[in-house]
Amino acid sequence: MSRIVILGAGVMGSALAVPPASLGGNQVLLIGSPLDDDIIGSVNRDRHHPTLDVSLPTTIEALRNDQLDDDALRQADNIVIGVSSAGVGWATQRIANAGAVPVTLALVTKGLVADPEGDAPPITYADALPAELCSTANGIVGIGGPCIARELALGYPTRVTFASRHRANAERMRADFQNDHYRITLDNDIVGVEACAALKNFLCIGVSAMFTAHPLGDQHAKNPLAALFNQAVVELATLAEWLREASRARGQREGVTDAAAPDHVPGNEPGHEPGHRPGHAFGQAAGAAFDLAGMGDLHVTVGGGRNSLLGRHLGEGKTLSATMAGPMQGVTVEGVDTGRALARGFQSACRDRRLDARKLPLTAAILDVIEHDVPFTMDFRTLPG
Amino acid sequence: MSRIVILGAGVMGSALAVPPASLGGNQVLLIGSPLDDDIIGSVNRDRHHPTLDVSLPTTIEALRNDQLDDDALRQADNIVIGVSSAGVGWATQRIANAGAVPVTLALVTKGLVADPEGDAPPITYADALPAELCSTANGIVGIGGPCIARELALGYPTRVTFASRHRANAERMRADFQNDHYRITLDNDIVGVEACAALKNFLCIGVSAMFTAHPLGDQHAKNPLAALFNQAVVELATLAEWLREASRARGQREGVTDAAAPDHVPGNEPGHEPGHRPGHAFGQAAGAAFDLAGMGDLHVTVGGGRNSLLGRHLGEGKTLSATMAGPMQGVTVEGVDTGRALARGFQSACRDRRLDARKLPLTAAILDVIEHDVPFTMDFRTLPG
Repeated sequence: MSRIVILGAGVMGSALAVPPASLGGNQVLLIGSPLDDDIIGSVNRDRHHPTLDVSLPTTIEALRNDQLDDDALRQADNIVIGVSSAGVGWATQRIANAGAVPVTLALVTKGLVADPEGDAPPITYADALPAELCSTANGIVGIGGPCIARELALGYPTRVTFASRHRANAERMRADFQNDHYRITLDNDIVGVEACAALKNFLCIGVSAMFTAHPLGDQHAKNPLAALFNQAVVELATLAEWLREASRARGQREGVTDAAAPDHVPGNEPGHEPGHRPGHAFGQAAGAAFDLAGMGDLHVTVGGGRNSLLGRHLGEGKTLSATMAGPMQGVTVEGVDTGRALARGFQSACRDRRLDARKLPLTAAILDVIEHDVPFTMDFRTLPG
Repeated sequence: MSRIVILGAGVMGSALAVPPASLGGNQVLLIGSPLDDDIIGSVNRDRHHPTLDVSLPTTIEALRNDQLDDDALRQADNIVIGVSSAGVGWATQRIANAGAVPVTLALVTKGLVADPEGDAPPITYADALPAELCSTANGIVGIGGPCIARELALGYPTRVTFASRHRANAERMRADFQNDHYRITLDNDIVGVEACAALKNFLCIGVSAMFTAHPLGDQHAKNPLAALFNQAVVELATLAEWLREASRARGQREGVTDAAAPDHVPGNEPGHEPGHRPGHAFGQAAGAAFDLAGMGDLHVTVGGGRNSLLGRHLGEGKTLSATMAGPMQGVTVEGVDTGRALARGFQSACRDRRLDARKLPLTAAILDVIEHDVPFTMDFRTLPG
């Protein structure tokens, strides 16, 4: 039995409370952020989660932020940061103020943080957390893979990746979260998984433009969509590998190394026959791109949601500013934020030849839209041969 | 300028005549099989291709089988076998009878041939062609990637792979076929590309069952579809690698080796920086699975067509026999034929531990449907952790 605290009662945090609450013996606390009081009120009234539109099981105990005492955080075996980007500061403060050192700490929030000076590669949220939260003793667990929150809460099957530099942490968390429907693979490569989880939102924008850019009868041409889906995964692998190398170099400069973490690639462990892991020519991070956190999550992200909707508007020839001032007014599009965090570091790496811009035409085309508000264009002649 | 003869005037052969005919100087002959007389008649009457529902450019010369003389075949620089499986015998006979030795010979037809004795791994169509057609001097070119024929004929953009043991052959063919919309990458790994091109039809059946197996409102859950899409690509990589190894072993036994073909993996050539090629942990064939011939083509195949339609019926709980006797009566489903060609070799390889059945649950589930006419079931707990 584990004590699990999920910080943030939005759609993803709340949905993630469902699998552990389905397993006998776990104690699951779902804690609303200061913005979630109405959600917690609704769940405690009749179990209905208003934004998920799902009835949550009674085995989840829902509390407002002001009902959570520090003891509950300190006694937690697992803490999950389940907020959106805006709430990460609140969540990390709550953990730090309580002096909580959970056995495992997991991060659901996906995104990149730009280098404050501007030119270095961006940093994944997991790497940007305060160092005391991600010491080698409790190496954080990142979660990637195809997982629409409402489907998870309703018990539809899926398969995701729990990644940590410390495999034992990912294993412990899997033991508390895996049920018959929520299936979990493990990965050591948290930077690759986190990079893919963030960047798939960004690349989805360009792929989804193909839903509208090439109309065919009352449908759309499917070849361009498939070809760009493929290209997006290949670019995801290149970008994830770049961020992984940058993370490693940064760790070395700061005296933090992965040394405590056995650098074993899943698929290369003893007793694990070779041939089960893609992506070595890209380095370790390619595995994430060509698996659930990359290809799998990109598939579901292109299938619907705000990033895909923006892409469909762009595919019709609208600019980003016209879309955000018109049909998508007031909507937060995570992939745009990720693109903004990516832009300067990407351009700098292309100038320095650490990245080959000719191999990343989709990335460049989406960044043009975000940085210069030009219409999205994808000239297939620029796809690398 | 090249002389190009395309054998077979069905949808794929005819669509493939469009890109070379768009390039100045090529002479393009589209030859109907004995079953294509009506198509050729229609094209010559008013340029309309009835099954493509597209008007073909006048730069394509359309001829009936009985109008083709052997000289035209002997003078061809490129011959493309563009028929469906049933026509391969006709096409190879025509080439052999004419004594034609084209500079490049390409194969569009996708499929596997079962070992006649039953237990050996199946053979790709390219490997099964008469040896005199695929000597090392004119190593055949296989074509893979997302390419719905009608979209190709209409000039919608896409990107495909031309694969040959002899890269120069693939390069020559690219020079004659690549235009602004039909973009071509090259690969040495013809067995991997051909295996993926055939097996993606088979795996598509199981992935597409997810469109109907998990209804959600008036749509369907998207997590299971994405998770199985991901699983299909991973299994494609494993199966392609197995067939590639089998092809190599067979070649060695028969004294045919790849020795004449430089065994350079795209991405590892001089002047080609590393990091551009996924899949080394799977061996060379993984590259095809995680690129256009695998992931890319699977994406478009799941999006529509007969293999996907069968999967959707299976996802509703119908058996294969009930589907083929009912809503899909008289329809040829290539993925079923591929499954039948795969079955005995697969089961034998699992018994001998050359394949690990636990890592191929989707393949096993689809084979159960085909071999034992049971309803399709995919227990996500069987997906390898």
